[in-house]
Amino acid sequence: MKIAILPGDGIGPEIVAQAVRVLEKLQAEGLQVEMETAPLGGAAYDQYGEPYPEATRQLARSADAILLGAVGGPAYDALPREKRPERGLLAIRKDLGLFGNLRPAILYPELAGASTLKPEVVAGLDIMIVRELTGDIYFGQPRGIHVNAAGEREGFNTMRYSESEIRRIAKLAFEIAQKRNRKLCSVDKANVLECTEFWKEILIDVAKDYPDVELSHMYVDNAAMQLVRNPKQFDVIVTGNIFGDILSDEASMLTGSIGMLPSASLDAANKGLYEPCHGSAPDIAGKNVANPLATILSLAMMMRYTFAREDLATRIEQAVQTVLRQGYRTADIFEPGTERISCSAMGDAVVAAL
Amino acid sequence: MKIAILPGDGIGPEIVAQAVRVLEKLQAEGLQVEMETAPLGGAAYDQYGEPYPEATRQLARSADAILLGAVGGPAYDALPREKRPERGLLAIRKDLGLFGNLRPAILYPELAGASTLKPEVVAGLDIMIVRELTGDIYFGQPRGIHVNAAGEREGFNTMRYSESEIRRIAKLAFEIAQKRNRKLCSVDKANVLECTEFWKEILIDVAKDYPDVELSHMYVDNAAMQLVRNPKQFDVIVTGNIFGDILSDEASMLTGSIGMLPSASLDAANKGLYEPCHGSAPDIAGKNVANPLATILSLAMMMRYTFAREDLATRIEQAVQTVLRQGYRTADIFEPGTERISCSAMGDAVVAAL
Ligand SMILES: CC(C)[C@H](C(=O)O)[C@@H](O)C(=O)O
Ligand SMILES: CC(C)[C@H](C(=O)O)[C@@H](O)C(=O)O
Repeated sequence: MKIAILPGDGIGPEIVAQAVRVLEKLQAEGLQVEMETAPLGGAAYDQYGEPYPEATRQLARSADAILLGAVGGPAYDALPREKRPERGLLAIRKDLGLFGNLRPAILYPELAGASTLKPEVVAGLDIMIVRELTGDIYFGQPRGIHVNAAGEREGFNTMRYSESEIRRIAKLAFEIAQKRNRKLCSVDKANVLECTEFWKEILIDVAKDYPDVELSHMYVDNAAMQLVRNPKQFDVIVTGNIFGDILSDEASMLTGSIGMLPSASLDAANKGLYEPCHGSAPDIAGKNVANPLATILSLAMMMRYTFAREDLATRIEQAVQTVLRQGYRTADIFEPGTERISCSAMGDAVVAAL
Repeated sequence: MKIAILPGDGIGPEIVAQAVRVLEKLQAEGLQVEMETAPLGGAAYDQYGEPYPEATRQLARSADAILLGAVGGPAYDALPREKRPERGLLAIRKDLGLFGNLRPAILYPELAGASTLKPEVVAGLDIMIVRELTGDIYFGQPRGIHVNAAGEREGFNTMRYSESEIRRIAKLAFEIAQKRNRKLCSVDKANVLECTEFWKEILIDVAKDYPDVELSHMYVDNAAMQLVRNPKQFDVIVTGNIFGDILSDEASMLTGSIGMLPSASLDAANKGLYEPCHGSAPDIAGKNVANPLATILSLAMMMRYTFAREDLATRIEQAVQTVLRQGYRTADIFEPGTERISCSAMGDAVVAAL
């Protein structure tokens, strides 16, 4: 396994370091792991003047999987658009063709109290959001800010999905639904947007190959409501890049513990980039108080999706559950009656529980 | 006051009838009201073969304000795109230049239990979402489903905002914020979309004319999270058409009582279309069980925004609060210990409380 380590910015280096310790433990047991580190985002800009420099690109391309911390921070806010850290993130996704973004929203029973929703509404919550990640209005051309025909300045972007782009994300979503409760909800705005009307048409066509999966359709505004009203009605949700960006963040917050949620971004050959759902949290960077569990759980997803090592994925996930059951908490998930520990101490605990 | 009454489809006629009774009571007291009815949506298609026929258009154009029930229903699902009920809604908004959509999300203390969020998170919730309604990807050209340069079918839409479109919605939002707690949060995706980067730039410029209002900016994915995490941090939110569609529905569901939420859609001269936030609920249509309060509260907004009759707006709103305090509930908001009554009985109760 060749794994590229991209610590990124803010708390990225601290949390990635704990996931690396988990990897090192597996390595010590005999797992063949090769790790190499490169900067992405602000850290890359500092070193190379680019958020996704050539050195990082070469490493990312040659690796089987990538572990990323998080990018961004106020130090980079004043940079021109193309130099900003998040451009590095968008660039690596596009460059590697990582079209399939998997974002689980899981409520850990030990952390149930953290949700702002009533316990009965979220108990046992386990949704998988499959977000398309390399198309849509994120990458559509033309785009920009110009003077229009009426002589007025205007901003514009283009939402676009081709048939093949929709087919491949639909297949991925159906395959994931097959391994879960076989319910797939496709989210669109087909009553207004032709782009998503087309999306819906292709989803219905792909569904013919997956007769064991029950496909439903929901408008994005209704989906945003239903996630609040009754989130447990969902098993797998599949949607485009921009709606997925919004809904996956909403869904993750239902759990109250965004510091716990991993993500995977896959290409057609299961090469993947794995990163926590949360951001770079510049306010607590360098203080050794961040929660490394989302990053460690991202490593578990890597074992599952890129390396087909369900055994290791489960082992890592169980170690995380063990430390929660032992009562260890970083500051973000601390409650009275539990033990507040640092980021690195949480790493210690997971390594010990492995 | 010339008011166009557009009952629409599903439960539309029943709920609008109760609001009309409130109007009639005010009329009997001496208020000069002229009412005329026309169909919109499916009802209009049935009668004229068009969801926004010329007769409705003429009435809507000549009226000072419009009261709408709701449009849509499964009977119209198989119609070609341009004939569907929601096209009637989009057409009337665009035709009348109703760019300013106001959607309050208010938690009524009497209905606090209906929210899926914990009481302490939503108690006292009172957010106003100002959604731009005649621009953005809803109306942007070009759009469609075609064969692209690579010979593949693709769907596409264009997100667009001109400077003047952004300025007028920004002004409306700042003015509304001035009458509330003077906090305005502009929601965008400026880190990815040039269209919304431009939006943000103009918002910052318009803010110079409103030094008493505190302007903040939030990415749409974060806003979707923050509405769940801590909705009371918001006073007024302003955003574009598609993000507003999603976030206003999410926000309304935080209250648990979408049957209670009104909306206003205003043009530059405060002419307005007023409608409940909920849909046409075909499953309960014709059963006299729907909740007419959102429509009655929409009438209150009409008195406030189009006719500058704050006195009447307050009177209607207080009548609604009175019936809630009296314990009357339609089925959607019924709880043990309250009295479940029909749609028309709720109308009776409000008229009596007025
Ligand atoms: C940082 C930003 C460009 C990114 C996105 O919008 O995709 C983030 O919100 C995410 O979801 O990973
Ligand atoms: C019915 C639909 C076209 C409409 C919209 O998207 O604007 C609705 O969701 C709304 O918010 O009024």
